Amino acid sequence: MLEIRTDLAIESKELYRETNKEEAPGVEVEKLEDEEYEITRVKILDEKGEESLGKPKGTYITIQVPKLKSADQDLKDKISKVLAKEIKGLGKSNKDTKTLIIGLGNWNVTPDALGPKVVDRVLVTRQYFIAYNKEEDETVANVSALSPGVMGLTGIETSEIVKGIVEKTRPDLVIAIDALASRKMDRVSTTIQISDTGINPGSGIGNKRIGLNQEYLGVPVLAIGVPTVVDAATMVNDTMDLILESMKSVAESGTEFYSTLQQVSNEEKYYLIREVLEPFMPNVVVTPKEIDLIIDDLSIIIANGLNIALHHGIHLEDVNRYIR
Amino acid sequence: MLEIRTDLAIESKELYRETNKEEAPGVEVEKLEDEEYEITRVKILDEKGEESLGKPKGTYITIQVPKLKSADQDLKDKISKVLAKEIKGLGKSNKDTKTLIIGLGNWNVTPDALGPKVVDRVLVTRQYFIAYNKEEDETVANVSALSPGVMGLTGIETSEIVKGIVEKTRPDLVIAIDALASRKMDRVSTTIQISDTGINPGSGIGNKRIGLNQEYLGVPVLAIGVPTVVDAATMVNDTMDLILESMKSVAESGTEFYSTLQQVSNEEKYYLIREVLEPFMPNVVVTPKEIDLIIDDLSIIIANGLNIALHHGIHLEDVNRYIR
Amino acid sequence: MLEIRTDLAIESKELYRETNKEEAPGVEVEKLEDEEYEITRVKILDEKGEESLGKPKGTYITIQVPKLKSADQDLKDKISKVLAKEIKGLGKSNKDTKTLIIGLGNWNVTPDALGPKVVDRVLVTRQYFIAYNKEEDETVANVSALSPGVMGLTGIETSEIVKGIVEKTRPDLVIAIDALASRKMDRVSTTIQISDTGINPGSGIGNKRIGLNQEYLGVPVLAIGVPTVVDAATMVNDTMDLILESMKSVAESGTEFYSTLQQVSNEEKYYLIREVLEPFMPNVVVTPKEIDLIIDDLSIIIANGLNIALHHGIHLEDVNRYIR
Amino acid sequence: MLEIRTDLAIESKELYRETNKEEAPGVEVEKLEDEEYEITRVKILDEKGEESLGKPKGTYITIQVPKLKSADQDLKDKISKVLAKEIKGLGKSNKDTKTLIIGLGNWNVTPDALGPKVVDRVLVTRQYFIAYNKEEDETVANVSALSPGVMGLTGIETSEIVKGIVEKTRPDLVIAIDALASRKMDRVSTTIQISDTGINPGSGIGNKRIGLNQEYLGVPVLAIGVPTVVDAATMVNDTMDLILESMKSVAESGTEFYSTLQQVSNEEKYYLIREVLEPFMPNVVVTPKEIDLIIDDLSIIIANGLNIALHHGIHLEDVNRYIR
Repeated sequence: MLEIRTDLAIESKELYRETNKEEAPGVEVEKLEDEEYEITRVKILDEKGEESLGKPKGTYITIQVPKLKSADQDLKDKISKVLAKEIKGLGKSNKDTKTLIIGLGNWNVTPDALGPKVVDRVLVTRQYFIAYNKEEDETVANVSALSPGVMGLTGIETSEIVKGIVEKTRPDLVIAIDALASRKMDRVSTTIQISDTGINPGSGIGNKRIGLNQEYLGVPVLAIGVPTVVDAATMVNDTMDLILESMKSVAESGTEFYSTLQQVSNEEKYYLIREVLEPFMPNVVVTPKEIDLIIDDLSIIIANGLNIALHHGIHLEDVNRYIR
Repeated sequence: MLEIRTDLAIESKELYRETNKEEAPGVEVEKLEDEEYEITRVKILDEKGEESLGKPKGTYITIQVPKLKSADQDLKDKISKVLAKEIKGLGKSNKDTKTLIIGLGNWNVTPDALGPKVVDRVLVTRQYFIAYNKEEDETVANVSALSPGVMGLTGIETSEIVKGIVEKTRPDLVIAIDALASRKMDRVSTTIQISDTGINPGSGIGNKRIGLNQEYLGVPVLAIGVPTVVDAATMVNDTMDLILESMKSVAESGTEFYSTLQQVSNEEKYYLIREVLEPFMPNVVVTPKEIDLIIDDLSIIIANGLNIALHHGIHLEDVNRYIR
Repeated sequence: MLEIRTDLAIESKELYRETNKEEAPGVEVEKLEDEEYEITRVKILDEKGEESLGKPKGTYITIQVPKLKSADQDLKDKISKVLAKEIKGLGKSNKDTKTLIIGLGNWNVTPDALGPKVVDRVLVTRQYFIAYNKEEDETVANVSALSPGVMGLTGIETSEIVKGIVEKTRPDLVIAIDALASRKMDRVSTTIQISDTGINPGSGIGNKRIGLNQEYLGVPVLAIGVPTVVDAATMVNDTMDLILESMKSVAESGTEFYSTLQQVSNEEKYYLIREVLEPFMPNVVVTPKEIDLIIDDLSIIIANGLNIALHHGIHLEDVNRYIR
Repeated sequence: MLEIRTDLAIESKELYRETNKEEAPGVEVEKLEDEEYEITRVKILDEKGEESLGKPKGTYITIQVPKLKSADQDLKDKISKVLAKEIKGLGKSNKDTKTLIIGLGNWNVTPDALGPKVVDRVLVTRQYFIAYNKEEDETVANVSALSPGVMGLTGIETSEIVKGIVEKTRPDLVIAIDALASRKMDRVSTTIQISDTGINPGSGIGNKRIGLNQEYLGVPVLAIGVPTVVDAATMVNDTMDLILESMKSVAESGTEFYSTLQQVSNEEKYYLIREVLEPFMPNVVVTPKEIDLIIDDLSIIIANGLNIALHHGIHLEDVNRYIR
């Protein structure tokens, strides 16, 4: 059974292969490569797949864009459009779908503020449907949006707030935006994951016990996430692996140091590191230095993607036109 | 019937007297003067009082502090304590009361951001009661807090969000914090109103149709408000009155201008001004220039007051100790 | 001589005509109308012109865009381009000009934060010229930018800070961005003024005694300003005028009230209002309610305009591409 | 010669001892322990000391407060007072000293924003001395303050901006506040360093080439710094050491892994890690998760300390009274 947790299905898959030296059963993978990005669609098909990847059945789409951190406007716009296409491809919304967008995370903690920043920027329209007493519209869909904060700020479980609002406003679809943790520094701020399984207890960073999924809320839940941190233990672990790797290539014969380290199993090593770091662990994160600016950029890319995906009158060329 | 609206019961009372040349019936008034502040408790006793002041039955306490805008730390602390005492005096909470604090208003519009800023700063504890599965505590009360945003940001009526959360979390008391409009510039940022009637449809600035009251939420609702703007029509109106006043004292004999102006009735004048200003009206506010700093200060004063009022282990000398 | 001060040359011109019932001498005016905006170029030609408008010799260009406050992206982009063209038209910069952009105003006071927000967003390049030890570049000009704050924040006169930096970095051109006061509410946030005279002592709102001009700094100084407030006295005054106007049209015969008010001269009326408002005056401003969002929008429009005007490799179609 | 750089003199000293197995020559150390904090005064006495620690001659005071991150108000106030006492103890200021406080760092990058946040909060008074044309005052000293930004924001070297302002305003003393990097996670946000040597080229994180010292500015320069990040290589390195340490205690006999790792020298290990991390290095930082709140807290503690140290009328009991 898998001990090392990650928010990205693509990483769970990699971990399974590393540990078991075979592909995970009950899982289907589809790849699509472009010059500037790569899309991977991981489908967990059955209970075997659920068990092997430690995530519920459903589709997990990863858009990886190595140059996203230093992207020019053209690339950003392109990714908004790719994101919109993938969201639509999940088939959970049409032009009359009432969508509630939930920005998860703590707006006071920069790497955790992605969700609230997207909510700040997305086009919100439900008030007009109410004001004009309309059920549908040619160009614009019925969208509401809210950032419920985190329990440390409100004293209330996020899921309770969202459930309360869903019961009052009766949306057809919930889309939750969240900052994730990755195992690899090079995925931080360069990867967007979309899934149709919502957010499930036990997944995610640290102490989020929320389950924002169809089972709890009664409507389909899409989750959009971007890794914005790696945890410290992972980082040390991966660096030690890189050291091993580099020593292997440099000195084939190998020093004693190298050969010994190699004998330590992956799990043993990671466990050791966690134990050593434990006292600092819950409170230390590793992030890009320019994380404040990166979060700003990402929130615009995602808000644009949502605007295009949800509103039928907002076309690809309108990107950036409806950003708040 | 009264046409000119104000958020402050003390101003409704004044308007009634100005218009009717007598005190409002069904209304009881209590005054308490201190060197640095003045407390006025307006009690609307019955339906006659409701009709004369255009506000529901209940107690409306006004703390007026002329020097609040340029207050030193001692005065700020004193006002926090006075506020705490008046909140307690309303008798809606004891040490086991579960309180939900709601910060009304738009955090993107400076003079409207008072509520959200108080929520940012107030001590929130409900999560510990849940984590330790406790019902009561010696020193700290069960407090949660949330800023629901405004309909233009979320697409959802504020009252629906609050109602949804009340149903999920079952507090015993809701306290709503809001920025108000005053008729007089010298009340802006110098006056705190506390009432036990909640927030009622038809009151408040502009388009807030929310009713956050016991009738809708099912639990008692206290409202704490501070005027942070005057509306433009009011300002012009009051200035014209001041001109009349000044002319009267300067030139007793009076010019024609003066005597004519005086003949115009109050309603006629205000109506005229509104009509002329209408095209600009909904979007123009008159505020102190340093409103950004004032809102910061006021939010600390009120959060301190709430902390002292709600938590039995936080004493008067602890002011500023639990501010986030 | 003119008593009523305004930051806009176009208003000085109007005031002169209102008071003197003739056009100001020594002043040349050029108009250019478009469907969505109107450009007025006021040229003060000589000392007569200086005296009549109370402003130094030079060119004052006003771009008026009535719909700017609710502009869609196309209109915003268009105005950035118009602004760029007018800046270039003043002939103070070419591709090798070293420009220092100064964001005047207090970032803590929303309507005064325009300059600092533009500086936050403008493309800054001087560091690359230093790093690569270059004097010129094909696509990008040498631009530095700084917001010196206000004396209340730093304890230092803004002009001293700017002078110190000019002496150290030796730019060829200074461009100062500032928030202005207008006499008319409908000019607030809809008008951009560009002048080649810099910022001069005695002009501007309140207590800015700075002189950021060629005489003091030793290099040409362009000033770009947008009115973001009207002062309270002006507002009351203009409303009273509008009342008169409306009464004239409604009831031709006129009430006594109307005919009397009309007899009061402009100066007398304004003087009266100022006196009455004096106690509140220095600290009260009248602004659009959504001023926070407006300042954000305007800062992007102006930063885009500057980017296009200064950098020869940034073309009209690149608008929004280099905004931070 | 020492390769591993650190901003803290106390760490340079430790590194010297680790590497050379003896105390650094030309260096004097004084310790002072309290229940809640520890003060270490490292005095570099001569050229030998300069060479051994890689820092210029002078006094480097470190206040270490293990519980600072979760400090209650009493501890925070106490540290402000301790800081004030140590600043005074350096003997560079008296009641007539004109001080310019410089907030170094990038306000857009949370862990680098300490300096600008202190400047936001410190009591600034120079404007009153100018307005009232005074040279001295009984209660308040002449203080100005400015955050010059970083070269990436302004295009101008920080030192040039400061030099320009010093030449214009002629202060007697400059105090520069900066965020530092530490080698140890447990020093982050718990340690304040004060030195009378200013900030010197080659020290500090990354690419700051500024020299803010008496030699360049012509007046004494105090530097106050707090480590807010550790660099990634250091973190991996220290974790590996901790692993070794923990293995030693757990299994005395030792695995092969342990004994081999121990044979690798410190330099070899650190060098290896740096090389492996190089591609990510410049842009990755390790910070406490709640860094946003920590920076806020620290800026208040330091601003309070400066207010007490500089203004003779602000006494210890006035802490928090003059914070903006």
